[in-house]
Amino acid sequence: MVESVGRGGLNAIYNIPVFLYICRMAVIKPSVPKGTRDFSPLEMGRRNFIFDTIKSVFRKYGYQQIETPSMENLSTLTGKYGDEGDKLMFKILNSGDFWAEAEKRNTEQSSKALTSVISEKALRYDLTVPFARYVVQHQNEITFPFKRFQVQPVWRADRPQKGRYREFFQCDADVVGSDSLLNEAEFVLIYDEALTRLGLKDFTIKINNRKILSGIADIIDKADNIIDLTVAIDKLDKIGLDGVKKELLDRGFTDADLAKIEPIILLQGSNEKKLLQLRNVLATSATGIKGCDEIEAVFNYLNLCKLQAANCELDITLARGLNYYTGAIFEVKTNEVQMGSIGGGGRYDDLTGMFGLKGLTGAGISFGADRIYDVMEELKLFPEDAGQASQVLICCFDKEGELYALPLLQKLRSANISAELYPAGAKIKKQLDYANSKHLAYVILIGSDEMQSGLLTVKNMITGTQEKLIADEILARLS
Amino acid sequence: MVESVGRGGLNAIYNIPVFLYICRMAVIKPSVPKGTRDFSPLEMGRRNFIFDTIKSVFRKYGYQQIETPSMENLSTLTGKYGDEGDKLMFKILNSGDFWAEAEKRNTEQSSKALTSVISEKALRYDLTVPFARYVVQHQNEITFPFKRFQVQPVWRADRPQKGRYREFFQCDADVVGSDSLLNEAEFVLIYDEALTRLGLKDFTIKINNRKILSGIADIIDKADNIIDLTVAIDKLDKIGLDGVKKELLDRGFTDADLAKIEPIILLQGSNEKKLLQLRNVLATSATGIKGCDEIEAVFNYLNLCKLQAANCELDITLARGLNYYTGAIFEVKTNEVQMGSIGGGGRYDDLTGMFGLKGLTGAGISFGADRIYDVMEELKLFPEDAGQASQVLICCFDKEGELYALPLLQKLRSANISAELYPAGAKIKKQLDYANSKHLAYVILIGSDEMQSGLLTVKNMITGTQEKLIADEILARLS
Repeated sequence: MVESVGRGGLNAIYNIPVFLYICRMAVIKPSVPKGTRDFSPLEMGRRNFIFDTIKSVFRKYGYQQIETPSMENLSTLTGKYGDEGDKLMFKILNSGDFWAEAEKRNTEQSSKALTSVISEKALRYDLTVPFARYVVQHQNEITFPFKRFQVQPVWRADRPQKGRYREFFQCDADVVGSDSLLNEAEFVLIYDEALTRLGLKDFTIKINNRKILSGIADIIDKADNIIDLTVAIDKLDKIGLDGVKKELLDRGFTDADLAKIEPIILLQGSNEKKLLQLRNVLATSATGIKGCDEIEAVFNYLNLCKLQAANCELDITLARGLNYYTGAIFEVKTNEVQMGSIGGGGRYDDLTGMFGLKGLTGAGISFGADRIYDVMEELKLFPEDAGQASQVLICCFDKEGELYALPLLQKLRSANISAELYPAGAKIKKQLDYANSKHLAYVILIGSDEMQSGLLTVKNMITGTQEKLIADEILARLS
Repeated sequence: MVESVGRGGLNAIYNIPVFLYICRMAVIKPSVPKGTRDFSPLEMGRRNFIFDTIKSVFRKYGYQQIETPSMENLSTLTGKYGDEGDKLMFKILNSGDFWAEAEKRNTEQSSKALTSVISEKALRYDLTVPFARYVVQHQNEITFPFKRFQVQPVWRADRPQKGRYREFFQCDADVVGSDSLLNEAEFVLIYDEALTRLGLKDFTIKINNRKILSGIADIIDKADNIIDLTVAIDKLDKIGLDGVKKELLDRGFTDADLAKIEPIILLQGSNEKKLLQLRNVLATSATGIKGCDEIEAVFNYLNLCKLQAANCELDITLARGLNYYTGAIFEVKTNEVQMGSIGGGGRYDDLTGMFGLKGLTGAGISFGADRIYDVMEELKLFPEDAGQASQVLICCFDKEGELYALPLLQKLRSANISAELYPAGAKIKKQLDYANSKHLAYVILIGSDEMQSGLLTVKNMITGTQEKLIADEILARLS
């Protein structure tokens, strides 16, 4: 229906042709665009539980929420995500007679040329470019270091598949304007606290540093081949040492290179022991040693704090985000179920350089909310009441009961108890079905006996027990 | 930056050309698309305060949250909002080589024809059509009556102006599958409780009923001219009785009509008195009398409840949403500042008929969040802490102080106190400026004296007072 145009929108009061339109409309089978989802009350309750938990931890660590518009100018987004990203962006059609406009400009007849005429905006592709734009645009209002978090949907025209959606929420915290490694340590604490609060009991936060990867490339004199090198090393889990070696040889590395790299790939033991070995191997690379220093500083901070459930592990095969991370690299994995990473992040130099504000360094992390949802569902970690249902339903047999019930309903709500009164006229069976389907904890029955005696029947819908109580006793019981 | 692609998105780990792109990019002055807004931490805190308050009241009354995708199929949206709405919808460009596709289909060269080839989706225009689509699509999972609320942005390509945005949040509660007038009464209670909790002290909930308006048209035998009639009457506030009369005459009503209508327009006194007069005047219209009965039933429910701050007023000049409302019509106005309506709603038949599910009646209301924000700002109703800042900043002079501070920081956070440690290396003046700009309540100073004695300097940033306390005393003070 269209009443929001009048009611909520407050944008247009009269919309006369609308009613006629509705009458003329053909009936269509409703569906959502592919790759998008509806969230039912149960799912919303659970998603809110995840987001509220993460947000409250962000806040506790001094991060403040911002929101940016769903659409950004194409000039803000284009070229920031590579050719592939430009292609996967959802562009918004200009309003007006853009076809005439296109003709007028006599474009080459290609989609690309046409696009520039008919679209000037696109939906947000991630939260980071809009954040960089925000920081530059509002730089005079911001006190640095600026610690912000943002939880909003992003859109990508990816081919939809299991667990991959065209609209999904990102959940990011970033600090800009501080190069202190304390920030990296705090990100580990944030992951630890948030995921522990969500009920995860065994997860690993992997840490690496881009400078260590550069150091490895340095010592074999192949700084230019760092991408080839790390892409191969990153596959250790999947293809094993022999596979990695073969891939490196295929990519032009020599047996001599492999001899130098092998001990690094096979690093074992505690983080301290790994660092010690790394310092030996990377001794000739100033960058590599800097990377070791940085990681050690983060571990030193963490040694003064107590992690609740996280294992923190130096993993030099971790190479995600290699193109933009310049220092720490993070990835979080649960050890309780089979699942890709549920979080990741790192440090980057020059977040805002693309918008003309140079030299602002920062670091950030992200939670993968959809995957965390799937993990929690598999482990049955959602609290019973995450379905956000009311607590009580008052059932009555007739109009008289309904009017009798109304003051009690108001009393319950004044005591901040979430309560409903089923409108008179329905069979009690139907009312109880309603209570069951909404997982309400209690039902209060009001019949003529109850009205006469003032003793109301209270049914605990979980245990099934019933008792007779007066209104004040009910209030005390449910408060 | 692009690290979210790797980190949060979990959608694409390697994105090799990106870094090069960023280096090559020309610097552009950043801005947001016209009619859209960034929300800073202060604004977010205040907006969250509004939304959280309204949501918690919705929940208390048994309404459950859902969310629908930002984009809907054009087949779902087109024709639901009239020609004007179709024009103001933000359409999304198909991905792929749509130009070739357009050529192939050899369309007429008009924007309209082209649009159908290059776009199949649009951004949500309101929350109600998507809700209707949701109900039909999920009808087998839903237990009726279904009470849902939804707080999400909608997009309209309106000409931007003061207080009118192209992206704005709607905040709706609707019940479908119940024709009980108890729902209408509860909407009044929801408005009363939510707006009172937000701090509004004097506001009016105007109620009318479509059937009363039909009744008025009936008694002058002008049922077909009900729109002309109500559009004119609706202007009473602005143009006065003489203006309304002139407009009615211009629109073809007769002096005899006016003589019958005038007493209705000028209805005065209590709601009871107005209803009594209406029943007299509308005696010959069955529809009109039905409208009076319905309004009276709502008032009867409300007489059993205590309104906190709302005035509830029968106003037969209220005609918003006339094209779709079939019963009650609501509008909410504050009496404390000059402002358009801050809420509205009503009852509609056949919400879901457009999607083939007939006979489902419903009613709904909406809060105008942007206007409520403006009212609250003008009346200074936002709580101090709505800016969602931390409580404490720990300041230290050097690296040693930083490491000394870390366990205290963790203790504070374990006690659920939002706390930050300023990374070592900055001048104390800069650290205090940071605390001030974030409106933090306390600063803890850790210098060499403090580390030696264990007595830390705690400064109350509001009163300016300082004292020396040990860590446990600080914890007790701030908890």
